[in-house]
Amino acid sequence: MLLLRRCHSLTRFGPLNTQRHQVTPAVASCAARLCSSSSSSEDHRSHQRVHSLSWKHALAGLLAGTGAVLAYGLHHQHKAERADTGVQTLKKSSSLPIFSQEEVTKHRSLEDGIWVTYKGGVYDITEFVAMHPGGDKIMLAAGGALEPFWALYAVHNQEHVLEILSDYKVGELNLEDLKKQQAVKSSDPYSSDPERHPVLHINSLKPFNAEPPPEILSDSYITPSAFFFKRNHLPVPQVDPASYQLHVEGLPGGALTLSLEDLKTRFPKHTITATLQCAGNRRSEMNKVKLVKGLNWGIAAISNATWSGARLRDVLLAAGYQPDVAQWARHVQFEGLDTDVTGTTYGASVPLNKAVSEEGDVLLAYEMNGEDIPPDHGFPVRVVVPGTVGARNVKWLGKIIVSAEESSSHWQQNDYKGFSPGTDWDTVDFKSAPAIQELPIQSAITTPADSATIDRSDGTLTVKGYAWSGGGREVVRVDVSLDGGKTWQAAQLRSGEKGQAPEPSPPPGRAWAWKLWEITAPLPPDAQELEIVCKAVDNSYNMQPDTVSPIWNLRGVLSNAWHRVKVKIRKDEEEE
Amino acid sequence: MLLLRRCHSLTRFGPLNTQRHQVTPAVASCAARLCSSSSSSEDHRSHQRVHSLSWKHALAGLLAGTGAVLAYGLHHQHKAERADTGVQTLKKSSSLPIFSQEEVTKHRSLEDGIWVTYKGGVYDITEFVAMHPGGDKIMLAAGGALEPFWALYAVHNQEHVLEILSDYKVGELNLEDLKKQQAVKSSDPYSSDPERHPVLHINSLKPFNAEPPPEILSDSYITPSAFFFKRNHLPVPQVDPASYQLHVEGLPGGALTLSLEDLKTRFPKHTITATLQCAGNRRSEMNKVKLVKGLNWGIAAISNATWSGARLRDVLLAAGYQPDVAQWARHVQFEGLDTDVTGTTYGASVPLNKAVSEEGDVLLAYEMNGEDIPPDHGFPVRVVVPGTVGARNVKWLGKIIVSAEESSSHWQQNDYKGFSPGTDWDTVDFKSAPAIQELPIQSAITTPADSATIDRSDGTLTVKGYAWSGGGREVVRVDVSLDGGKTWQAAQLRSGEKGQAPEPSPPPGRAWAWKLWEITAPLPPDAQELEIVCKAVDNSYNMQPDTVSPIWNLRGVLSNAWHRVKVKIRKDEEEE
Repeated sequence: MLLLRRCHSLTRFGPLNTQRHQVTPAVASCAARLCSSSSSSEDHRSHQRVHSLSWKHALAGLLAGTGAVLAYGLHHQHKAERADTGVQTLKKSSSLPIFSQEEVTKHRSLEDGIWVTYKGGVYDITEFVAMHPGGDKIMLAAGGALEPFWALYAVHNQEHVLEILSDYKVGELNLEDLKKQQAVKSSDPYSSDPERHPVLHINSLKPFNAEPPPEILSDSYITPSAFFFKRNHLPVPQVDPASYQLHVEGLPGGALTLSLEDLKTRFPKHTITATLQCAGNRRSEMNKVKLVKGLNWGIAAISNATWSGARLRDVLLAAGYQPDVAQWARHVQFEGLDTDVTGTTYGASVPLNKAVSEEGDVLLAYEMNGEDIPPDHGFPVRVVVPGTVGARNVKWLGKIIVSAEESSSHWQQNDYKGFSPGTDWDTVDFKSAPAIQELPIQSAITTPADSATIDRSDGTLTVKGYAWSGGGREVVRVDVSLDGGKTWQAAQLRSGEKGQAPEPSPPPGRAWAWKLWEITAPLPPDAQELEIVCKAVDNSYNMQPDTVSPIWNLRGVLSNAWHRVKVKIRKDEEEE
Repeated sequence: MLLLRRCHSLTRFGPLNTQRHQVTPAVASCAARLCSSSSSSEDHRSHQRVHSLSWKHALAGLLAGTGAVLAYGLHHQHKAERADTGVQTLKKSSSLPIFSQEEVTKHRSLEDGIWVTYKGGVYDITEFVAMHPGGDKIMLAAGGALEPFWALYAVHNQEHVLEILSDYKVGELNLEDLKKQQAVKSSDPYSSDPERHPVLHINSLKPFNAEPPPEILSDSYITPSAFFFKRNHLPVPQVDPASYQLHVEGLPGGALTLSLEDLKTRFPKHTITATLQCAGNRRSEMNKVKLVKGLNWGIAAISNATWSGARLRDVLLAAGYQPDVAQWARHVQFEGLDTDVTGTTYGASVPLNKAVSEEGDVLLAYEMNGEDIPPDHGFPVRVVVPGTVGARNVKWLGKIIVSAEESSSHWQQNDYKGFSPGTDWDTVDFKSAPAIQELPIQSAITTPADSATIDRSDGTLTVKGYAWSGGGREVVRVDVSLDGGKTWQAAQLRSGEKGQAPEPSPPPGRAWAWKLWEITAPLPPDAQELEIVCKAVDNSYNMQPDTVSPIWNLRGVLSNAWHRVKVKIRKDEEEE
């Protein structure tokens, strides 16, 4: 009975429980059950002997602190069995079939098979799922590319991992999909939107708005671009980098036009690590209080990346900016190349002093995580306004206007503003509130997931999450409570990849990147369920409000109350 | 019965109820009762006819929107009565008695008489109290000087007010007290501390720590210096402005020494309006959760003033500061001229980038509210670090040190830091938390006072208070609830003296001054008591935490939960 439940826990998709203590020796037995539920006919015979797997082998792998030994052993035993039964022939065929991405994406369950792609190859890893040392996290890759996950989990960068993978090759991805060239359906303005990784939870398809599974966020200080939350307001424009032009207007010297090459060569390349967050992150919690207008974001409309490009300050100086401009100008407006059916572009603005400050670090970025910015994130050039709400970080940047006025766009004037909980759509006056720029202190629990069931196991619980504040304010503490907020302990903060040296401490007011946090605390002895709560503090000692209701607002933005997660605790095995 | 209760309400000292709707025609009748309880023998006869005061007269004054007409009328009727009975002789005496401040201060109740001083004169205004158009607020001046109140309530700057006052003259203040020269008791390091206004609520006498009555704060956008909260860590040093020297150290050019004259003449004079707040403001609310170490501040360890002086930036540039200094220096330390018995000075530091920023507005201030800085506030020179906790605004500034390190002072290293509620004195590691610099969003209700009883009167309630945020973040909204936080309405904000044009909107990130707020809302029809709550929002959309307990910390700093005030509602007269 216990075994069956564990298997279920490993296979279910959606809110995945990634508690470390779930990786127990039981995973080996579980593997057998899982695989025997697979529907691919050739698999049936091969699984009979998995039960005979040496427990010593499994245990050795776990004690070594990595599941790799276990997985390798399981895999090789498995492989030998397959060779006996002639299953290997498919792989050895000289002409493997060609599959489309669409066909690959259909294979996302044990019933339909688990397919993934890697460097143009298509792999059916259904059998391997139960042997995967990283547990059920492998299911996140189902139907999509492995590369972003392997970038995230660097342990895969080993020869024997590729060796394991090669055994599961079933075909090639067609060239068209490999090049991510999409069929153009002229009637649909979204038809040229890029492919996205299937792991993303889609809040809106057109325009595309999606967030990664929360547990991915806290596994990597830098969010791989494929998993970085995506918030488009309009179709993704197709921009030819060779003919790209950026226009800078509103300065005494007249208009300046720059090519992508100009941006890359005429200005020093500046790199920052910065977290972007959608104003609507965690809106779903406000929806539970009372319905708001807006996409029902979970807790993952926030991500962290490195960004490289020219400083906006440098470009404005080149375009004729001088200090006396500040006597009449107050704002810098940005226009995107993304347009609606009337030809209106996306637009936003930021205060001039942020734009021109040496310490503001506003970038015209052409790289994200060391590569060209992907189409969904603003290829070839986007603005990165660190410390400022996502909506002002205009993508596919076409025009910069130095101005006495804020952007007149809908998104600056009649959206992305905060109101009193007492304000409704009948009484709201959008002019009465300032456009959101800097965001307030924020944190959330990424694991365990809400409603997860946790093993009592070694009597401790590990809780992970992220914390960030706007305006360059550094997160200095995250308090975690296991009793709904009655008692609190400070979590450990991390500002770099796990096991690596942390990034150097930023100067005051320039902490643009989040901190990941983690705490392992004793489980209360008799607790059957817990309400886990987190709240963060930044270096202005701003704290999150306790509850959602008093910060509720009709647009569902700025949802930064304490994050609460309820979990059940499974009794010890011997008690069942 | 009602009359008697009202009289009591007017005369009680301490938490004074200043709701505007208390100024009703009943005040006139009340006057009679009050005066007849006076203990001065010569008054007894003069009050018999007050009852005959024309109600038309009283009503005219109130309808005119000011109580001045009423007061003047009441006063003249009174005066005529006094003339009849020879009471005027005292005033007309050519040799009025000389009183000490100590004697004046003894007269702070209707029983002992209400005495005040004005420009060296001593006035017994016992009789006038009940006629005062401003209601019982006049009691705040009892035993002290009128000047700071009249600066606060400019309506007094009229000839007829002086005329009224002159009739109550009973003596002269002795010259010594007038010059505020204090007797020197060599054994007490605090013996040369200056005189303070008796209205201040003293939390500690040595060192002197005191706050004004809260309702004074919201009556004046600029807090008069006499009422500005005072937070000294050590005795007030006596500094001779003629020989004052400021030493600037740590820059490549070597040490620079400046006289007060140098500061005033060699650098442009820069003026800002800035609110200072003690880190311990509202600590008393944390004490109610669990006892903390620290002075039991109420809600008034915060005040707003104009400050003029040389920019620290300009002085550092004159002392040899160049951008490359920032490669090794991180902090600017300040040392006060106030010392403990071992000769150790008060000290603190701020981040270098705040100190040298053109937008940081850090001043070496020699004026407060347009006058020399008073001794309690740092005469002759103090640092004003706008947006930053009071403790870094070092008074009686003696030395500035540009440094790679923070100040090593107790107050920088082992005080003024925030911790998790779970941290106690056994587990605290002061190195684990950053020194408080910018403060978080704050607001409080100044009227009505907690536990006040409110007339149902016209069916509305006016609530007033202040709101401020650190780091130059502008307060953009204050929400007020009359039902303990269930429903909210946005209050009206004010950034200047009432009836005057507001100060011009500050550039982003330079909103150093608080906003005063006010809301008049209908009283719930059947409510017998209310829990009034306020919470503010700054332009980074940071909000105050809901409750005190989760932000409790062992030092009782950063107490910025929603402010809650419970009041009782008195039924309508006709219902009694």
